[in-house]
Amino acid sequence: MKKKILVLVVGYGNIGCSVVDGIKGQPDMELAGVLTRRPDDVLKQAPGLPVFHIDQTESLPVKPDVAILCGGSCSDLFDGGQGQRLIQLCHTVDSFDTHPRILEYADAMNSAAKEAGHVAIFSTGWDPGAFSMARVHNEAFMLGCKPYAFYGLSKEGGLSMGHTNAINILAGVANSKQYTHALEDSMKRVRSGENPDLAPGDMHWRECIVVLEEGADENAIRKQIIEMPNYFAPYRTEVEFVTQEELDSRYTGMPHDGIVIAVSEDGRSRIEYSNTWESNPDGTAGIMLAFARAAVRLGNQPAPGILNAITRLVNPLRQNKKGYTCGSFSPLDIPPAMLSIHSREILMTKYM
Amino acid sequence: MKKKILVLVVGYGNIGCSVVDGIKGQPDMELAGVLTRRPDDVLKQAPGLPVFHIDQTESLPVKPDVAILCGGSCSDLFDGGQGQRLIQLCHTVDSFDTHPRILEYADAMNSAAKEAGHVAIFSTGWDPGAFSMARVHNEAFMLGCKPYAFYGLSKEGGLSMGHTNAINILAGVANSKQYTHALEDSMKRVRSGENPDLAPGDMHWRECIVVLEEGADENAIRKQIIEMPNYFAPYRTEVEFVTQEELDSRYTGMPHDGIVIAVSEDGRSRIEYSNTWESNPDGTAGIMLAFARAAVRLGNQPAPGILNAITRLVNPLRQNKKGYTCGSFSPLDIPPAMLSIHSREILMTKYM
Repeated sequence: MKKKILVLVVGYGNIGCSVVDGIKGQPDMELAGVLTRRPDDVLKQAPGLPVFHIDQTESLPVKPDVAILCGGSCSDLFDGGQGQRLIQLCHTVDSFDTHPRILEYADAMNSAAKEAGHVAIFSTGWDPGAFSMARVHNEAFMLGCKPYAFYGLSKEGGLSMGHTNAINILAGVANSKQYTHALEDSMKRVRSGENPDLAPGDMHWRECIVVLEEGADENAIRKQIIEMPNYFAPYRTEVEFVTQEELDSRYTGMPHDGIVIAVSEDGRSRIEYSNTWESNPDGTAGIMLAFARAAVRLGNQPAPGILNAITRLVNPLRQNKKGYTCGSFSPLDIPPAMLSIHSREILMTKYM
Repeated sequence: MKKKILVLVVGYGNIGCSVVDGIKGQPDMELAGVLTRRPDDVLKQAPGLPVFHIDQTESLPVKPDVAILCGGSCSDLFDGGQGQRLIQLCHTVDSFDTHPRILEYADAMNSAAKEAGHVAIFSTGWDPGAFSMARVHNEAFMLGCKPYAFYGLSKEGGLSMGHTNAINILAGVANSKQYTHALEDSMKRVRSGENPDLAPGDMHWRECIVVLEEGADENAIRKQIIEMPNYFAPYRTEVEFVTQEELDSRYTGMPHDGIVIAVSEDGRSRIEYSNTWESNPDGTAGIMLAFARAAVRLGNQPAPGILNAITRLVNPLRQNKKGYTCGSFSPLDIPPAMLSIHSREILMTKYM
């Protein structure tokens, strides 16, 4: 039997937990362990799990093939240095989702990954990730159209984990849930073929349900949320404070959905791509696991050969000491076949 | 200014015509000419077009970067030898759509392309092509689900060009249109999460509107259509004979649509990808042009370096004499970024 891909899960929040669960459904993968700042808490939640403290990163008793980074985008991955630390150990996959900083993060991870000789696939998940791929495909296939993405199509809206996390890390916040809602009028304008210019705030509004820590200042926290750059400042944002009991009973589950729409200028041709997730973290985890497979394959692939100095300038070499591919890659760099568990023969006969 | 991609269009039927039109909308492409068996007919249809006879393939006054092959799958591309002939000249893109023979065609084109040192991307268009990519993505992201494709969702059904062509080449047929219709009950079963086993004939039925040549035998042609392997034999097929006037007035335009649906076993999570084309050939052409861009980029890319004998066995070398990538590739081998006209910076900042 072929050796299974050994997967290290870094962080055991909602996504980390879903990734650990999701590995059981991947016949070609095996859990190497969970790396966390709070091993005791994780063990209480999941007794028997192979858990390591984040300080053991450089002295793990196992050698994982790939680490799936499930921390917060800026707090953990980038400013927290987790991405650049873990890429020293093995290939990595993350769901870095601070859109305006993706290019900067990509470059930082590329340098680190090339130095380490590993492959880092950043910003996977469904958005960024699957939706990014849909945006690029749709625009390439109907050149000139603008691909629009809407989220929270149901009445309840969609639970955004990235935005929930951005609230949760504020001092004074005990817990929260952030629901995103699509603005229906804008969807209608897009489907008509108008290809309008829409700012983020024209497409969605954001509903924040927040539980405060004792003694926290409601107004100060509301202001902090509403004015948070990138995450909330560009949107109409409503903040409601509730007790933990209310949050638990009124806001159950973690559903999310969204759609990428591209329409020709005459409004008569259209490409749509939609995801509906009963559990947002489970959906995200399923996608991250497919990219973990791709990271290992890419890292075991011979890198483009050295042609000549001019080509190298155009096509900066991503080759490690053994001649294999290394560097950082986005979902836009990954061909579909590399994500699939199936052989070329199966893909050509059953999936084409 | 960057040199434009010089595109040769081979064949000037519906798709060829749409590709020639579509090139005007691609700022990085230019028409090298149209290669056809009937230059006089093409010139009558489109005066002033640079047209060459197919016999001039090896003696063209221009050196195209890529040829877009718009002929019939088996009659022209494979059994007709057009694929293997054109790949000697330059990179190629085609829409080979005889699903059961794709693997065989892929292998034949791979040998020819490696020998010629060019890149052949086969089976592009929307299905196979965009829908193949959706099937693979959906299954990889929700491992274990089965991706289903339905076509002809509207009441009128969808005009299938591959199937229309398969009828048109029969002796005694003057003209035809083939409309595909989705079976709604099966779509309902799929959306429920049942993940049923469905044969092709359980999902669609086929409506054939045929104009006969004078003296042709209605019953013999009906039988030939209904029993045609792959194209019609697996389906409930209805054949109606009409005059050319009826065909022109009752069956206008070339609309088509379709959807790829994947649903989790509990029916609560779902990925859907749909295309709606006012003009099927225009939609197909837009997708083929994006893959033409990818073919040129892939062919200008350094091939994976030579590592060692073992790696070469696993990863058969696709490298031409200049060290660039060559061989045959399916849409499943092409990363999204390679299809896009935009730079990495734009993709990272606007599309992720």
